[in-house]
Amino acid sequence: MSHNSFGHLFRVTTFGESHGPAIGAVVDGCPPRLTFRREDVQAALDKRRPGQSRFTTQRKEPDEVEILSGVIEAEDGTLTTTGTPIALLIRNVDQRSKDYSNIATSYRPGHADYTYDVKYGVRDHRGGGRSSARETASRVAAGAIARLVAPRVAIRGALVAMGEIEIDRTRWDWSEIDNNPFFCPDPVAAKKMEGYLDGIRKSGSSVGAMIEIVAEGAPAGLGAPIYGKLDADLACAFMSINAVKGVEIGAGMEVARLTGEQNADEMRAGNDGRPVFLSNKAGGVLGGISTGQPIVARFAVKPTSSILTPRRSVDQTGAEVDVSTKGRHDPCVGIRAVPVGEAMMAIVLADHVLRHRGQVG
Amino acid sequence: MSHNSFGHLFRVTTFGESHGPAIGAVVDGCPPRLTFRREDVQAALDKRRPGQSRFTTQRKEPDEVEILSGVIEAEDGTLTTTGTPIALLIRNVDQRSKDYSNIATSYRPGHADYTYDVKYGVRDHRGGGRSSARETASRVAAGAIARLVAPRVAIRGALVAMGEIEIDRTRWDWSEIDNNPFFCPDPVAAKKMEGYLDGIRKSGSSVGAMIEIVAEGAPAGLGAPIYGKLDADLACAFMSINAVKGVEIGAGMEVARLTGEQNADEMRAGNDGRPVFLSNKAGGVLGGISTGQPIVARFAVKPTSSILTPRRSVDQTGAEVDVSTKGRHDPCVGIRAVPVGEAMMAIVLADHVLRHRGQVG
Amino acid sequence: MSHNSFGHLFRVTTFGESHGPAIGAVVDGCPPRLTFRREDVQAALDKRRPGQSRFTTQRKEPDEVEILSGVIEAEDGTLTTTGTPIALLIRNVDQRSKDYSNIATSYRPGHADYTYDVKYGVRDHRGGGRSSARETASRVAAGAIARLVAPRVAIRGALVAMGEIEIDRTRWDWSEIDNNPFFCPDPVAAKKMEGYLDGIRKSGSSVGAMIEIVAEGAPAGLGAPIYGKLDADLACAFMSINAVKGVEIGAGMEVARLTGEQNADEMRAGNDGRPVFLSNKAGGVLGGISTGQPIVARFAVKPTSSILTPRRSVDQTGAEVDVSTKGRHDPCVGIRAVPVGEAMMAIVLADHVLRHRGQVG
Amino acid sequence: MSHNSFGHLFRVTTFGESHGPAIGAVVDGCPPRLTFRREDVQAALDKRRPGQSRFTTQRKEPDEVEILSGVIEAEDGTLTTTGTPIALLIRNVDQRSKDYSNIATSYRPGHADYTYDVKYGVRDHRGGGRSSARETASRVAAGAIARLVAPRVAIRGALVAMGEIEIDRTRWDWSEIDNNPFFCPDPVAAKKMEGYLDGIRKSGSSVGAMIEIVAEGAPAGLGAPIYGKLDADLACAFMSINAVKGVEIGAGMEVARLTGEQNADEMRAGNDGRPVFLSNKAGGVLGGISTGQPIVARFAVKPTSSILTPRRSVDQTGAEVDVSTKGRHDPCVGIRAVPVGEAMMAIVLADHVLRHRGQVG
Repeated sequence: MSHNSFGHLFRVTTFGESHGPAIGAVVDGCPPRLTFRREDVQAALDKRRPGQSRFTTQRKEPDEVEILSGVIEAEDGTLTTTGTPIALLIRNVDQRSKDYSNIATSYRPGHADYTYDVKYGVRDHRGGGRSSARETASRVAAGAIARLVAPRVAIRGALVAMGEIEIDRTRWDWSEIDNNPFFCPDPVAAKKMEGYLDGIRKSGSSVGAMIEIVAEGAPAGLGAPIYGKLDADLACAFMSINAVKGVEIGAGMEVARLTGEQNADEMRAGNDGRPVFLSNKAGGVLGGISTGQPIVARFAVKPTSSILTPRRSVDQTGAEVDVSTKGRHDPCVGIRAVPVGEAMMAIVLADHVLRHRGQVG
Repeated sequence: MSHNSFGHLFRVTTFGESHGPAIGAVVDGCPPRLTFRREDVQAALDKRRPGQSRFTTQRKEPDEVEILSGVIEAEDGTLTTTGTPIALLIRNVDQRSKDYSNIATSYRPGHADYTYDVKYGVRDHRGGGRSSARETASRVAAGAIARLVAPRVAIRGALVAMGEIEIDRTRWDWSEIDNNPFFCPDPVAAKKMEGYLDGIRKSGSSVGAMIEIVAEGAPAGLGAPIYGKLDADLACAFMSINAVKGVEIGAGMEVARLTGEQNADEMRAGNDGRPVFLSNKAGGVLGGISTGQPIVARFAVKPTSSILTPRRSVDQTGAEVDVSTKGRHDPCVGIRAVPVGEAMMAIVLADHVLRHRGQVG
Repeated sequence: MSHNSFGHLFRVTTFGESHGPAIGAVVDGCPPRLTFRREDVQAALDKRRPGQSRFTTQRKEPDEVEILSGVIEAEDGTLTTTGTPIALLIRNVDQRSKDYSNIATSYRPGHADYTYDVKYGVRDHRGGGRSSARETASRVAAGAIARLVAPRVAIRGALVAMGEIEIDRTRWDWSEIDNNPFFCPDPVAAKKMEGYLDGIRKSGSSVGAMIEIVAEGAPAGLGAPIYGKLDADLACAFMSINAVKGVEIGAGMEVARLTGEQNADEMRAGNDGRPVFLSNKAGGVLGGISTGQPIVARFAVKPTSSILTPRRSVDQTGAEVDVSTKGRHDPCVGIRAVPVGEAMMAIVLADHVLRHRGQVG
Repeated sequence: MSHNSFGHLFRVTTFGESHGPAIGAVVDGCPPRLTFRREDVQAALDKRRPGQSRFTTQRKEPDEVEILSGVIEAEDGTLTTTGTPIALLIRNVDQRSKDYSNIATSYRPGHADYTYDVKYGVRDHRGGGRSSARETASRVAAGAIARLVAPRVAIRGALVAMGEIEIDRTRWDWSEIDNNPFFCPDPVAAKKMEGYLDGIRKSGSSVGAMIEIVAEGAPAGLGAPIYGKLDADLACAFMSINAVKGVEIGAGMEVARLTGEQNADEMRAGNDGRPVFLSNKAGGVLGGISTGQPIVARFAVKPTSSILTPRRSVDQTGAEVDVSTKGRHDPCVGIRAVPVGEAMMAIVLADHVLRHRGQVG
């Protein structure tokens, strides 16, 4: 069962609510004798950490990770995995629960408030509780461990659209990712997004975004057909991220319009005995198994439902109310979904590296 | 682990290759004391069965299902489930393996030929072996059992786009589904598709399609956050279908362009104490839990990679070859994906009905 | 979930009732490129097959296995695994259901009749339905596939006690196993058992037995602490066999009486860099991980509950009745548990070979 | 997969090493709206806590539990479960790692030292690392949550034998359990154990024990045949406890000696429509499903392998050494296995209550 666990041989279990004492993850199945430093996990968390620009929530969370188990520490701080579960703990610090008193009993339209109540008959309303994007910090910490399993695979994410603004792919430059607060690979689009999102932010509104995650260097052969296909597991992983409503692999939804001729990624002989593909409509996955090409996935993140504009709703008694949210929120929660998407790609690949090695050797 | 099983409490395991002796499914965890008839499963299979129009493969497969276990048969043929695994067997009949001799050693571009070989070092090339769409007959049979678990949920699928032709949603009429060979709810679009696909078919080409699956009447509260979210499991289920490259829930990829105001599905008080939603951008799922609205999902099916037009490729030795496929194939494999998508929706919902009942009572 | 599946990377799902059309197994996760012949599976089934001596049920079942998927057959009949699920089918032939009419509504004391009814509210009473020892034929077929995964491990089982008769371990001779109808390694005890069991059989009674399974040649390092320990998985596997009420590893229940000095398996340096153990109280497992010594397990099988002597019971209406069983039954069901125990040992080891390879490489 | 998780719908994941910063558990799938207090979990831990008499290790661990997630706290300290994962954290305090310097490179005979090294190629030798009995504190904490799921089931454990001393069952008195440091229900035997174990302790030796766990009030119908049988899951649960080498249900290994007549638990009509059983050879489980009788299981715990008497062994280089252990250890680790066994019984029953409710309603 997988209520709060993801993966099989490399298995991540997360816990924690937005305004509880702590959040965290248990990473089970990590191979032994891999080495890393606490700072490697911290750096991944820092990339996702809120409050780093005016475009993300102003909640101040240091997100300092403590590694509780599963490693042996050398005198120089190098950590070596032992094959036992690695528990990662992040204390919550800045919990202004009173910000949320007005939504304690009312349901934000488009939010999980209503569904948690109707499912469980009880709800931790403070900051969204378990449904908060805060849970994704646990994923990012676990993703840093996952990257150790296949160190030669380069996993990178980018924001490729925000509301009305799309990037121009001819300007794609990975090095631009760190030059703007949006993880946007197109500097021209990034500039436009700055003004655009300032407007959204000041009006108390929010906006959606499109994220693309690319894994380069993954070997051919990963994926476990029929019901552990690599692309199906990626779809599950990305759709499990808060606010995601669509996932594409390679050409994605566009394939509905293509002919067989257009969609065929032709092959020629490669120098290393492996074929060279002349295109990548498949996004690096055929029949649920990686081809050795870059694995390319996209997902769409909806605008956060916490907005200042009053929306019609109901409360727990069923009475009609108007709801507007004053808490600190991301005007575009899609921005911080970039490192989360990278983490999920890393976790899925780590799991399939181990699964492939187990079954096929 | 889930190489060839799907679901948790309601769990389907499928087996079988396109040109082996048989395919089938084992349905584990079905509740006891549900009643059905063999004809119910057969009717589902008949809907997917090949050779019913000139627009699907001309392979002649009766797809007669045999129910091997898990039921008690009354004298009138009524079957009652006993809570033990229900094994469903479908013999393969029309296996012209010689059609495939030319692809025994060459890789069809866009097909799983290459990836199965590179993963397993061996491949059943006859008709695609395990990667064939024939495997989906097992899913459809299992889906017929799944429908018994939540009999008041109406699950229906439709083809909403084929290549260049999209339906006009204002003309959507579920009763039209059975009036054309495409499961198309728009009679005008269906007429256009007929001529369009005839052209594709005669030229030996193929084309993609977009499928929409709608489940009406599912209760609020289904879904198991964070890693068993209803929409994440649906994304996994649909992406596991052959040739699917993208999955959307509700507004889908479109949400990247919306503002928080546009995306909010506002609520008003309902007569039964449950809220009434004024729109359904969420596609019936919030925070990974069903809202009680219709669950709406779409997926894009790529054109089949078996086409007459020669494409550049390589063979098992790495030598460059041109490949064209003479076997009997669907010019638009998306058509038969409609009943398969319905089956996967039924399986995911059955699993979550049982999971919810188990945890929450 | 594992209602009817066992194992993780090497995963066996069984189905079928005693008097339904067929029983069988789906073996998922078997590595590719292993070779075997249909006769190998058949030979394993023949060892367990009923009706081979007067000491097992007189039901005539040829137990012919059909291999439906997951293999490619060469012209000489050699089968090569492809990494896809291997479905194994065994038709039921000799189903004298009328023998069971008297227990259709009454509960045999000590049998699963009552518990299936109370759990599911419905029961396939014919021959015990799913609770029949007939299900174990599916395990034996799957076990034959499991043995392919670690071909250098020799797995053998023996009956070491039957009712009042215990073997003398100083007379243990594996070659005697095939010289008597009990799989008994002590020829003197076997002789005694013959007369003893004839008496039991003629009086319509039944008797329990103790089985020992030994795996020699398994590498050190198998087992996945803390909750996938090798001995815990073996305990689960053996306890899941019909009628088993106790499981021991190595010194077993006896360890409660030992001191630390008596229990320590001392070690000396071995020639190959691996230690040599001077005793095997551990039964080849320490901390849930194999030591490289022989893995030794025992389990106790209760007497079959189908006996001629009337026993007090109740029927489905709650009314008091006397029950005696006239069906064809094993006077000592423990005899046929020997090949079943071997199969479960093979399945557990195959799973752990793959799990170890996956996590540790 | 279940390296470090146990259970399906009610699922416990534990982490932590003996001498790392902390140990803990994540309890996933707990139903919502159950209430308890932190003190309830603490009380369970206190029962297992070391250092409470001279007969357990003198390590001083307060074992204070912190509840990090999954609950809402009322002003009076009452905790209400929300259906999300409950993380339980226990800091390690008294870690005299230097005690273990002599076993950093040598293998204690009968201990997991060697097997962890041979499996993972690395080992946290301090106090046994993950293989330490300290891990069982996590189980006990999780077990306290598990008891909430079926509050009317009374789960109690007792030590029924220690080395040469067995209890007299005619003197069994549950109220005596708290009157001696052994959880022994026979006051006469408890008195003998005191002198006996003092001798063992003073000589630096250790001794095994037999534990019996009884669950009264569990409903009939729990258990999921064929591979999720209640007794098979109990066998797995108990065998996963450190140092356990044998598990029995009901009459256990003794059944090998019984006839069908002796083994049949006869039934008579009960007042509530449910049958009354006249004996309980079955230990409350038939066909893998609970009968409604008390569920009775026993397991044998071997003597701890850390003893003062030098034993022959090897070190990591393969060189021959003599090993004796000076660390603080339990002379009879079986004593503290009593609350651990109770916890595992609670966890298995909680899981099966939810699984039964999910499948059967």
